[in-house]
Amino acid sequence: MTKPTSGDPHSTAGLYVHAGQEYTRDTAYIEDRIVADPDHAELAPGARAWPVAAGRYRLVAARACPWANRTLIVRRLLGLEDAISVGMPGPTHDARSWRFHLDPDGRDPVLGTERLQENYLARFTDYSRGITVPAIVDVPTGQVVTNDFPQITEDFSTQWRRFHREGAPDLWPAELVPEMRQVMKRVYTEINNGVYRCGFAGSQQAYDAAYDRLWAAMDWVEDRLSTRRYLMGEHITEADVRLFTTLVRFDPVYVSHFKASRNKLTELPHLWGYARDLFQTPGFGDTVDFQQIKEHYFVVHRDINPSGIVPRGPALENWTTPHGREALGGSPFAPGTTAPGPVRPGERVPAGHTPFVA
Amino acid sequence: MTKPTSGDPHSTAGLYVHAGQEYTRDTAYIEDRIVADPDHAELAPGARAWPVAAGRYRLVAARACPWANRTLIVRRLLGLEDAISVGMPGPTHDARSWRFHLDPDGRDPVLGTERLQENYLARFTDYSRGITVPAIVDVPTGQVVTNDFPQITEDFSTQWRRFHREGAPDLWPAELVPEMRQVMKRVYTEINNGVYRCGFAGSQQAYDAAYDRLWAAMDWVEDRLSTRRYLMGEHITEADVRLFTTLVRFDPVYVSHFKASRNKLTELPHLWGYARDLFQTPGFGDTVDFQQIKEHYFVVHRDINPSGIVPRGPALENWTTPHGREALGGSPFAPGTTAPGPVRPGERVPAGHTPFVA
Repeated sequence: MTKPTSGDPHSTAGLYVHAGQEYTRDTAYIEDRIVADPDHAELAPGARAWPVAAGRYRLVAARACPWANRTLIVRRLLGLEDAISVGMPGPTHDARSWRFHLDPDGRDPVLGTERLQENYLARFTDYSRGITVPAIVDVPTGQVVTNDFPQITEDFSTQWRRFHREGAPDLWPAELVPEMRQVMKRVYTEINNGVYRCGFAGSQQAYDAAYDRLWAAMDWVEDRLSTRRYLMGEHITEADVRLFTTLVRFDPVYVSHFKASRNKLTELPHLWGYARDLFQTPGFGDTVDFQQIKEHYFVVHRDINPSGIVPRGPALENWTTPHGREALGGSPFAPGTTAPGPVRPGERVPAGHTPFVA
Repeated sequence: MTKPTSGDPHSTAGLYVHAGQEYTRDTAYIEDRIVADPDHAELAPGARAWPVAAGRYRLVAARACPWANRTLIVRRLLGLEDAISVGMPGPTHDARSWRFHLDPDGRDPVLGTERLQENYLARFTDYSRGITVPAIVDVPTGQVVTNDFPQITEDFSTQWRRFHREGAPDLWPAELVPEMRQVMKRVYTEINNGVYRCGFAGSQQAYDAAYDRLWAAMDWVEDRLSTRRYLMGEHITEADVRLFTTLVRFDPVYVSHFKASRNKLTELPHLWGYARDLFQTPGFGDTVDFQQIKEHYFVVHRDINPSGIVPRGPALENWTTPHGREALGGSPFAPGTTAPGPVRPGERVPAGHTPFVA
């Protein structure tokens, strides 16, 4: 078992910016897995296998956080709402922890905790690292099982199959997985993490290098998506989920707050069409809360935005305009699979927080 | 004589942001004037009239500052380069003063001072308010004559006539002046100053109100410019100079640094065409130093941008694209008047600081 260290921007611990240095994301997570067959699971050294079981686990995922947003999308696409419940911390964690301050009495209604930190401490009494989302909590014990976000969504697809809805898409098509892993790796290091590398650079030099690196990758996906409807071709895969959660935050946050400012997403025609195509697909836009996203970054990162004032812009109504991506062929879901149904009433993004109308 | 007070963002003194408060620009300036007929000048109470004289005065105007930028444009349009020399402080003033740190030995080659503050102190030994640009200095005594920026450009047009170049435009056409003053007043309070009101708001509430006020005015000029090539109709006037210096800073600075983020200028079709039309007119774009503009705001305002890191974006090559405004009729300069000639060799914006090629 390894634990997250400080310095992780979707965690709550440590300083983000280190003077003169390039930003480096800590990637040490609680690497336990929840699997279909615990006796034959591939595990990291020291990690433990927990059994898949409907109703046993609670996904804790702040809407604000791009890494948590991935889990909300995949859970919706696969129809895991009944098997895995969800708890949602508000957007503005404090120095100690993400908090359930939007819930009645400020407590998660299932876990009963005020701070996600309590669930980390229930697992490790001496837990001193950042309290990150997404995390999966074992409801009977209140203990965090894992916060290893790339593994969480992969396991939703591969380990929770028997709980998938009828018509659930295959987000990891076997024939595409080798190339997909390469694409997702580049998307992760250069884009998902690349925007943070710009925003948390500790010097002009580190920022300049981060900016060039980000935009080289943005040009790569812009070009890749000029001939493919989705990153891996004709249908949505996990790779699209992972790129989408950064793109949807690009204009509201990254372009200004993180100085990823060469262009707005709206100025990159293929990426902008692609992002709207996904946004307008059930399971994507209906998980996005632009208001919480902006509040999170602009309120929490006081070292970047000392006033804590949240920008009113940008105008976002354009997310619902026609994207024209049908012209490239393909379809969101492969034949034999379908879009997810309506969002559960208790899980709807508040009206006014997003232009998306489900 | 009144003196500038602190709290003025093109000055060097005081705090910009007052918690919980709306930003209010102090508008007390040294109101002396340089006039054609000192015996019959209209003066503010206590102000003094100085005589127009070629070679006697030096305009001190940092390229970074929008208020100073106005004077550089008007001086070019009217061809006052030989009559009024120019000194240019670098973009990053310190707490005390704008500084001539880009000049050889860090001193203005004519005034011999390192800091503009020295020229303010030469005039008033107890001068304790902000050291603002633009300022006009009497070269023989090294004393600041005036820093009253709206009066400076008006007097360039009306008092310095006998030194205007042949073909100089009339930037204050008599028949338009009454309406022009109304338009310029609204442009000043709602847009020139409106972006600062957003950026220096001391609370979310003050910011929200400032944002609404700014965008109401931006929509007003966007609409006004949908049927007029220039603000006052067919030709360039002082009103256009005053709007331009804010527009040219909008995407590089205000949209992010000041959270004026509803839209980029490039997303407002009439204003974007209008801004490029002016930018591509001799006297406008050739005074703009995008690099110094960005450095000024992002380095000096540490209360907004603690890292002092200067964004690499946005892409600016698009400022030289065709603007299509000829379709509205009109022309930059009225019949009988002409565009200014080439920029003086010593006054060129460094290559690489702007996409404009003169």
